[in-house]
Amino acid sequence: MSILIVGSVALDTVKTPLRERKDILGGSATYAAYAASFFSPVNLVAVVGTDFPQRYTNILEKRKIDLEGLEKKKGKTFRWSGSYEEDMNKRRTLHLSLNVFKSFRPSIPGRYRNSRYLFLSNIDPELQLGILRQARKPKLVVADTIDHWIINKRKLLLTLLKKIDIFLLNDEEARMLSGTSSLARAARFLISRGPPRVIIKKGEHGALMFSRCGCFALPGYPLEKVSDPTGAGDCFAGGFLGYLAKKERFREGEFRKGVIYGSVLASFAVENFGLNRLRSLTAKEIEERYKDFKDMTDS
Amino acid sequence: MSILIVGSVALDTVKTPLRERKDILGGSATYAAYAASFFSPVNLVAVVGTDFPQRYTNILEKRKIDLEGLEKKKGKTFRWSGSYEEDMNKRRTLHLSLNVFKSFRPSIPGRYRNSRYLFLSNIDPELQLGILRQARKPKLVVADTIDHWIINKRKLLLTLLKKIDIFLLNDEEARMLSGTSSLARAARFLISRGPPRVIIKKGEHGALMFSRCGCFALPGYPLEKVSDPTGAGDCFAGGFLGYLAKKERFREGEFRKGVIYGSVLASFAVENFGLNRLRSLTAKEIEERYKDFKDMTDS
Repeated sequence: MSILIVGSVALDTVKTPLRERKDILGGSATYAAYAASFFSPVNLVAVVGTDFPQRYTNILEKRKIDLEGLEKKKGKTFRWSGSYEEDMNKRRTLHLSLNVFKSFRPSIPGRYRNSRYLFLSNIDPELQLGILRQARKPKLVVADTIDHWIINKRKLLLTLLKKIDIFLLNDEEARMLSGTSSLARAARFLISRGPPRVIIKKGEHGALMFSRCGCFALPGYPLEKVSDPTGAGDCFAGGFLGYLAKKERFREGEFRKGVIYGSVLASFAVENFGLNRLRSLTAKEIEERYKDFKDMTDS
Repeated sequence: MSILIVGSVALDTVKTPLRERKDILGGSATYAAYAASFFSPVNLVAVVGTDFPQRYTNILEKRKIDLEGLEKKKGKTFRWSGSYEEDMNKRRTLHLSLNVFKSFRPSIPGRYRNSRYLFLSNIDPELQLGILRQARKPKLVVADTIDHWIINKRKLLLTLLKKIDIFLLNDEEARMLSGTSSLARAARFLISRGPPRVIIKKGEHGALMFSRCGCFALPGYPLEKVSDPTGAGDCFAGGFLGYLAKKERFREGEFRKGVIYGSVLASFAVENFGLNRLRSLTAKEIEERYKDFKDMTDS
């Protein structure tokens, strides 16, 4: 079954201690869609400016990502630039130009409205709620957020929590939104506000999934080299939901496998800049790393 | 089979954002011995001053920890005081008085010299090497360290690595000693220097064990409340080696179970100040949390 992914498509400038890449293809929806496309068909809803390079459109089309929902608006594409420190865990936003994204009011093409799997990436909760109003009969809705909305749109974000199935956020955000330093307690707080399932992303330290079935903890993959952590969380979301949409089953075991596949995609994504590593990724490599994760956690 | 544990027995003063405890029973050997005693008999080698309270001796004796090797020297007991910040991951040493520990030259009682399981906690690598010279036929030697020795006794520490079976250290220390930010590469470097097995402790994020059998990754236990992280790493070591000494088997599966039992003991230890939580801990609780770990990581 196809997945509907809504969010940003951006031109990123990424600086690491060793390298810099200018105006590479980025954005939360881009990463999530690309990762999900390894498992399921993807419908993308986002906006770009008239400066958006055709070669980037081609990259997405090549993965058979449906781009009817990729609006092209007069003006410039959303631009983000950030830098990472030596240990790659600390990111600093250097510059942000919303450009055409500022007036983004996502409208879901008729063809997409029956999508049963939705990923609402970290956009304004007001827009996330707007999308939910347009979706006809979603079966599984996953939403992400960022600290900016926790600080500035807390009330709307809590309203959104009542309407989604899985809430995805990182450890810092979970602590910020719940007001507790314990992730177990943070998850309990979030589940009490609506979503039956909460996934807390911990970057290189893996992920925690909480639900009434208890907690599933997956460690991070011990990588030899991390080149660019940008988009890892979105690749996780894409891999996770992509796998579930393919299976169309919602048992605890499938959710856990989804967390592993999400982590597999994220672990590959950070091995090179932007989408570079995913662009050469094969199904065989995905299965091999899935097996690595299983071996590594088997006791 | 009994374990020989060598290290510090100290009086700790611990400050957290909520509480302060003065002169509580602490020290690396204390924590490791107490944790190990849930699985195997323990022989302790350490030194205390004449001010060491009898009630603390009683606490150790009650767990049937053999104290023939606990030297009582004229002077004051080793004292450490530290404080933790809100998130409990950052520790600051406020004060350190080595006292009688300054001239500690561990001598292993004759009765202990046939101990086949050795834990050399984070003392001066010179002393760690001295103990190895006294041990007759150790079967499994585990050694820990701290940043202080990495900085000041790097060469001796690398000599030690050639003579031990398992090297235990935290993520920061692994990065510091190997000069690489990737823990996978750090472990490879350390294994190339001698020990066939390296365990990297990551605090609340769990532990990674590397060997020729690959990598075993165990996530941290998502605790509701952390009261005092002091000694968690030593409790890990004690639980790990205690379990292995009981089993007397050295297959990959047993090492992995050892990592889980080590993590179980560490996860309990941090729930209260000093040894308080371990003092009320039961075998049933240990098995329950072991099962929690298995359930939490099962996919």
